[in-house]
Amino acid sequence: MKVDEGMIFASDSRTNAGLDNIAKFCKMTVFERAGDRVMVLLSSGNLAGTQAIISLLAQRGDDPDNRHSLWKARTMFDAVNLVSDAMRDIERRDGASLEASDLTFNASFILGGQIRGTEPRLFQIYPEGNFIECSEDTPFFQIGETKYGKPIIVRAYDRAMSFAETAKLLMVSFDSTLKSNLSVGLPLDLMFYQKDSMRIGFRKRIGIDDPYYRTVSDGWSNALKTAFKSLPDFPEA
Amino acid sequence: MKVDEGMIFASDSRTNAGLDNIAKFCKMTVFERAGDRVMVLLSSGNLAGTQAIISLLAQRGDDPDNRHSLWKARTMFDAVNLVSDAMRDIERRDGASLEASDLTFNASFILGGQIRGTEPRLFQIYPEGNFIECSEDTPFFQIGETKYGKPIIVRAYDRAMSFAETAKLLMVSFDSTLKSNLSVGLPLDLMFYQKDSMRIGFRKRIGIDDPYYRTVSDGWSNALKTAFKSLPDFPEA
Repeated sequence: MKVDEGMIFASDSRTNAGLDNIAKFCKMTVFERAGDRVMVLLSSGNLAGTQAIISLLAQRGDDPDNRHSLWKARTMFDAVNLVSDAMRDIERRDGASLEASDLTFNASFILGGQIRGTEPRLFQIYPEGNFIECSEDTPFFQIGETKYGKPIIVRAYDRAMSFAETAKLLMVSFDSTLKSNLSVGLPLDLMFYQKDSMRIGFRKRIGIDDPYYRTVSDGWSNALKTAFKSLPDFPEA
Repeated sequence: MKVDEGMIFASDSRTNAGLDNIAKFCKMTVFERAGDRVMVLLSSGNLAGTQAIISLLAQRGDDPDNRHSLWKARTMFDAVNLVSDAMRDIERRDGASLEASDLTFNASFILGGQIRGTEPRLFQIYPEGNFIECSEDTPFFQIGETKYGKPIIVRAYDRAMSFAETAKLLMVSFDSTLKSNLSVGLPLDLMFYQKDSMRIGFRKRIGIDDPYYRTVSDGWSNALKTAFKSLPDFPEA
């Protein structure tokens, strides 16, 4: 999510291969060279696919001779194209085998960041490797299980929000999804990127015992009930 | 949705065959013989399929010699089996042709009602024709685009709610979905069934100009914002 102060990233950490096979993996990957660039990648979809894409991006970055290194990207537009290229490389490798088992290559990503001398930018990349950039009209992206948590974002988002308020909004949104869908699970990874800082800001992993998360999760249920009671009842019953 | 007072039914009225082909159809069908039985059927899925199923049920009901008439069902369990049978009859007729165009037979229904001498019961019927019945733990069903509107139901539902409060809850839930998904559209059809009345209760079609709907829709955005502000901000930003 983009706000005036910068960008804020949040991801859950549950992966599953069926209800009887769930596991915990961080879905937030950060490429940082402090003072020069920060790029944050959030992933969704089949874990084998997203991990392979991230490994490929990391390996290309480690090779000083590789033209496709994220460290050499001059702009965030170049960077998002490199992510897209890596996705298509992995899709070319794995796609046919997946299809033979009636599976689809379904990795998708959110990429946000800033490279020195350019503006911060935020992209969503589809499984096909094409992508869109956020705008003033739609200043946030969600991937994965997006529906339960969207209504509160649509209503409460304000670009002038502080990081403290934005983090609250993301907690409330994730909490709605967590309460409705078993494929989304704690802990959450949260990160702030302060515009023009060119370095990772505050970062935290938020688990079930986090006192602030508990306050929001319990408090939101009560706040919603109070909000609901504040509206007039249907008049004709 | 089941509450202590009885049952309340709500449906939107938008159907679509792609974004460029939307239309308005009532998705609530009532079979009533006042004093004897009320059965309410809410439908979701391909319109050709749901209409054919409802026509078949109506035609079987009109034929005094037909054993598969909803008017002859002794219990709501018998009734839900008759709906299921009609679904499978239509699926047998249309399924192969749909499959040839990579479409699936996807009709699903909610059936609620009461037959004199029995308790009111509420069922959800899957496209395959199998079905589940609501319980104290899960006293409501949704079909179609269910996700956006579910979190508020999960949190605000209370079986002791009056019809006036229950109608408010359904308005708020539908409003969240209406604001997020173009495949759901006004007007809404709303109906109350008072337990043991054996007749249709209050029924209303609610369009964009309905003053109560406007109050809820506008008021809910503000109430949500107030609720959101009432929670403490993230403390570490």
